[in-house]
Amino acid sequence: MSASRVIEGAERGWIIPIGGAEEKEDSPQILRRFVALAGGRGADIAVIPTASAVSSTGPRYERLFADMGARRVVSLDFDTRRDAEEPSRLERLRAATGVFFTGGNQLRLSTLVGGTSVAKAVRQMNAGGTPVAGSVRLAPGLGLTNRFIIDQHFRQRDRLGRLLTALAYNPFAVGIGLDEDTAAFISPDNTVEVEGSGGITVVDASEVQFSSMDSVAEGDPVCLLGVKLHILARGATFNLQSRRPDAGSLVKSKR
Amino acid sequence: MSASRVIEGAERGWIIPIGGAEEKEDSPQILRRFVALAGGRGADIAVIPTASAVSSTGPRYERLFADMGARRVVSLDFDTRRDAEEPSRLERLRAATGVFFTGGNQLRLSTLVGGTSVAKAVRQMNAGGTPVAGSVRLAPGLGLTNRFIIDQHFRQRDRLGRLLTALAYNPFAVGIGLDEDTAAFISPDNTVEVEGSGGITVVDASEVQFSSMDSVAEGDPVCLLGVKLHILARGATFNLQSRRPDAGSLVKSKR
Repeated sequence: MSASRVIEGAERGWIIPIGGAEEKEDSPQILRRFVALAGGRGADIAVIPTASAVSSTGPRYERLFADMGARRVVSLDFDTRRDAEEPSRLERLRAATGVFFTGGNQLRLSTLVGGTSVAKAVRQMNAGGTPVAGSVRLAPGLGLTNRFIIDQHFRQRDRLGRLLTALAYNPFAVGIGLDEDTAAFISPDNTVEVEGSGGITVVDASEVQFSSMDSVAEGDPVCLLGVKLHILARGATFNLQSRRPDAGSLVKSKR
Repeated sequence: MSASRVIEGAERGWIIPIGGAEEKEDSPQILRRFVALAGGRGADIAVIPTASAVSSTGPRYERLFADMGARRVVSLDFDTRRDAEEPSRLERLRAATGVFFTGGNQLRLSTLVGGTSVAKAVRQMNAGGTPVAGSVRLAPGLGLTNRFIIDQHFRQRDRLGRLLTALAYNPFAVGIGLDEDTAAFISPDNTVEVEGSGGITVVDASEVQFSSMDSVAEGDPVCLLGVKLHILARGATFNLQSRRPDAGSLVKSKR
């Protein structure tokens, strides 16, 4: 599925993948910044808790976002693919100024929502400027962008090898590994900013000198020479278009 | 501990870290190549099973190397640091044309052998041309080289994060992650060659554009921009001096 084309004149909305286990009570930097991007005091947030098996997930986020000052919050659950075609819910969704997918079972989310009118609506809303955040791998099924491959709980579970394998199949994408309580705030101009308490590992295979991916026998190890790797902390950025990292505010703070 | 200086006129011997669980019976490529480097039919191999808690480890390797045609094999165990100073064992060790450390508890090996006359003898032998191999992290305590940091069972246990952390403290070294049944054959001119069924992950931090290592608060994530990463399969090489990877024979095999 390809990403929706940006509507003429409109800027694409922020895309905000979250690395799992984001801080919700004491210092919810990620959730706060999402509310601000969705309009702050004017925010109308649609929470989609479909990935979660716990029925209290939706109401919990409703309360959290309301406490942070959002004007309206509604939890929209989709238990069947037919739910995801229902006009009244779609209308409610389209009124939102920010969409938030909760964490949980990714397969459940893509099975119930992938390819439905809900997925299409979210893509169109994002193309028109609405920020979409989620404690989920946002790519599969939703198709917001094909620029990157996301992995979560990244350094907590030491998953670089897994991300590299995914990239070997799709070397033009950028691999983004999110630590827990860490989100990539991807701006309309495709700059990755870091929010939260951890770091973001960026794996860029665009300048690979050699790959044996096309000739390797099954089961044999792939050879991949010249991958670039950056670990971003808060203040540093990476542009997905130019593939350039920048230490940003971290350089000044060293003085 | 710094590496021994190479004796004038002599070439340093091969250094051969092995990534754990090397194939011993059906297709023991790693062990065979070690025997060949130690002199083949003329090889006199000293096995040091000190890291292993299993008393059958030494005799097992004695049998394996003898079956591969080595002229003489002896297992030299060191149960105390005093053992590691005993003249008769040291003399026997010095007669060897190849030294092999078995896997096991790395801490036990460095506690019993690190800094002793045995460690010194192995360093001098290697500096004079004797190959030293081992299913161990060869660096700590033995001090054969400070050019690289080794980790084992690398992609089986997805350990890149751990290796990156080690490198952040020692950016001038090269990180080498060995898959199981895979060895880095490091030649006298410091070229890493791959042997065995898996791959070798090389992490090179020498061209890092920015590191916040010197200014980061404890517990905060480190920012590290511009790390290079290569995955070598058999046939590809990496030179530790020039930091250059080469696809080697893999390029030809693609035709």
